[in-house]
Amino acid sequence: MDYPARQKRLREDLLARRLDALLISHLPNIRYLCGFSGSAAALLVASDGSTLFTDGRYTQQAKAEVKAAGIRIVRTGPLNSAVEWLGRRRSSNRGKGINLGIEGQYLTVSARRALAKVQGKSIRIREAPDLVERARMVKDAGEIALIRSAVTLGAALFDRALQAIRPGVREVEVAAEMEYAARKGGADGMAFDTIVAAGPRSALPHGRASEAAIAPDGFVVCDFGVILHGYCSDRTRTVYVGAATGEARRVYEAVLSSQQAAIAAVRPGAEVRRVDGAARKTLQKHGLAQYFTHSTGHGVGLEIHESPRVARGQQEILRPGMVITIEPGVYLPGQWGVRIEDMVVVTEQGCEVLSPTQKEFIVI
Amino acid sequence: MDYPARQKRLREDLLARRLDALLISHLPNIRYLCGFSGSAAALLVASDGSTLFTDGRYTQQAKAEVKAAGIRIVRTGPLNSAVEWLGRRRSSNRGKGINLGIEGQYLTVSARRALAKVQGKSIRIREAPDLVERARMVKDAGEIALIRSAVTLGAALFDRALQAIRPGVREVEVAAEMEYAARKGGADGMAFDTIVAAGPRSALPHGRASEAAIAPDGFVVCDFGVILHGYCSDRTRTVYVGAATGEARRVYEAVLSSQQAAIAAVRPGAEVRRVDGAARKTLQKHGLAQYFTHSTGHGVGLEIHESPRVARGQQEILRPGMVITIEPGVYLPGQWGVRIEDMVVVTEQGCEVLSPTQKEFIVI
Repeated sequence: MDYPARQKRLREDLLARRLDALLISHLPNIRYLCGFSGSAAALLVASDGSTLFTDGRYTQQAKAEVKAAGIRIVRTGPLNSAVEWLGRRRSSNRGKGINLGIEGQYLTVSARRALAKVQGKSIRIREAPDLVERARMVKDAGEIALIRSAVTLGAALFDRALQAIRPGVREVEVAAEMEYAARKGGADGMAFDTIVAAGPRSALPHGRASEAAIAPDGFVVCDFGVILHGYCSDRTRTVYVGAATGEARRVYEAVLSSQQAAIAAVRPGAEVRRVDGAARKTLQKHGLAQYFTHSTGHGVGLEIHESPRVARGQQEILRPGMVITIEPGVYLPGQWGVRIEDMVVVTEQGCEVLSPTQKEFIVI
Repeated sequence: MDYPARQKRLREDLLARRLDALLISHLPNIRYLCGFSGSAAALLVASDGSTLFTDGRYTQQAKAEVKAAGIRIVRTGPLNSAVEWLGRRRSSNRGKGINLGIEGQYLTVSARRALAKVQGKSIRIREAPDLVERARMVKDAGEIALIRSAVTLGAALFDRALQAIRPGVREVEVAAEMEYAARKGGADGMAFDTIVAAGPRSALPHGRASEAAIAPDGFVVCDFGVILHGYCSDRTRTVYVGAATGEARRVYEAVLSSQQAAIAAVRPGAEVRRVDGAARKTLQKHGLAQYFTHSTGHGVGLEIHESPRVARGQQEILRPGMVITIEPGVYLPGQWGVRIEDMVVVTEQGCEVLSPTQKEFIVI
């Protein structure tokens, strides 16, 4: 990963916004900028260099992982330590004050108050825009390679699910088999709580695998993802257990058409709301739009939910290298639900579905 | 769970602090007070009743789970919606203003700024102390029963680890076996990234299971926990692979003595720093205190890390019903590490080690 280039871009962004430095507390942003993957740290990116602040538990890990930044092992909180250090350094260097940006969408009110106590007169603190998140939207070649690996591992879990899904089997048992395969395949862990939602539970868009047994008849929604070398995968497949009615097939095909229409709308220069609109319009034709109760997708990378949101009203413009999910679904409360999801990467011409696999109607 | 009693206690605390209402955004606090386990919500606890704000994805789940609170399904952010709703309700009810507490250690700077835009003149917002966290420190009988179940399931995972740990086996494979057993046993998931750290990696206090193969000779630290019905377990065991030296045995026995001394110090009325001190003093006798680089323990419940911190300088006084970990460890960077951890519940007389199991030196 080209950490110096990422920091260089950020420094240009800071300069354009009249910020002398940015104090980064959001761990995925820290990992993106210097490679550190520990769970307690602050990264200070200033015009003349970057410094990572962490505690004694991470001395070895920081030495092994951190690139393009100095390391300071501190005894008190890394955020306060960073600001105190900056204040000392600045006041010894020159008299003029410093404009320090913070990440307002992650820093807590308490942490902000604590900074106020140590910032002194030479440091002016203000909320910075989401510069790192915006940079992270467009993945570089190294990231896309890692995402591809995660998606490939993630995709294989569905084969395991297909072996496990049978009437009477508990949802958590299906999840157990998938997660076991993920770990055996080298996953750092799951990207989110595995969803296995059968029968009426399939109507819950967030139906985490429960102790409920799979009913002899109905849809089973499986939504699952792994983290591999820090990067996430995200995919949903829906199958039918039992004797599928014509209605079930009709609904499934409508969701699949909707997903395909949205994928066809993904290209550089398109606004994400158009992709969302393509999914909705197709469901409308089938009289199902009112049952599509969430957005069409989201960015994926170091985090399972990143920018951009692929949703109504969102005007973000797609650019090559963006990686998003396309996941329309329809849900009839108390009865059934269907969702189909893949990850796509925006290319120069349009998009590529990462790890394309068959999506025809499966009956178990 | 007696949600009305928990809310009643909170209302008394609010009254004593001249707060008319508390806006709760931290999800474990919301679950503790009204049972809701979804991932997007705000709970407003006012003197005359409580209201949960969530979005359309959680309509069914809220109806099924929420006790002792009204439910409002909202289209915009639940925090802003709660404050707007409170403002409308108050201004129609009576003229006088309201003092609203927020959770400063969880609410972000951005979210706080957004509230400022909608709070109007009738609502005064200020940071509340950690009232819910303090109530949660002392577990009631229902919670202790659930924690006991989680600990029992968690403890069984070590048997699976013992079968899996062999020279040449990758750390992640051991973790895979443990997590599979957890899921099969009904766990909602793991309470944290499973640590399996072998050989020199055992010296990393946070050595998440990696692709590294277990070396033919050295310690293996396993630190693992499940979430079962919302409650966490946490346990560490260290075993030796290969021909253990006298030094390895000596270090192991020292850590075990340290843990036993700390457990013996757990009783109602004792300050937590005394428990931490008991662990350190024992290691000092063995000349190992300088290698014990973290605190002795922490509270466990709906979250894996809760109050109190069992650490140097912490003056919290133990009370019956508190559940804490006791987990001293020693780490020689680049060489080896040993940690032994159990969860204990403070009783009227002293404490009970939850799910006691043998801790003698195991060689594989």
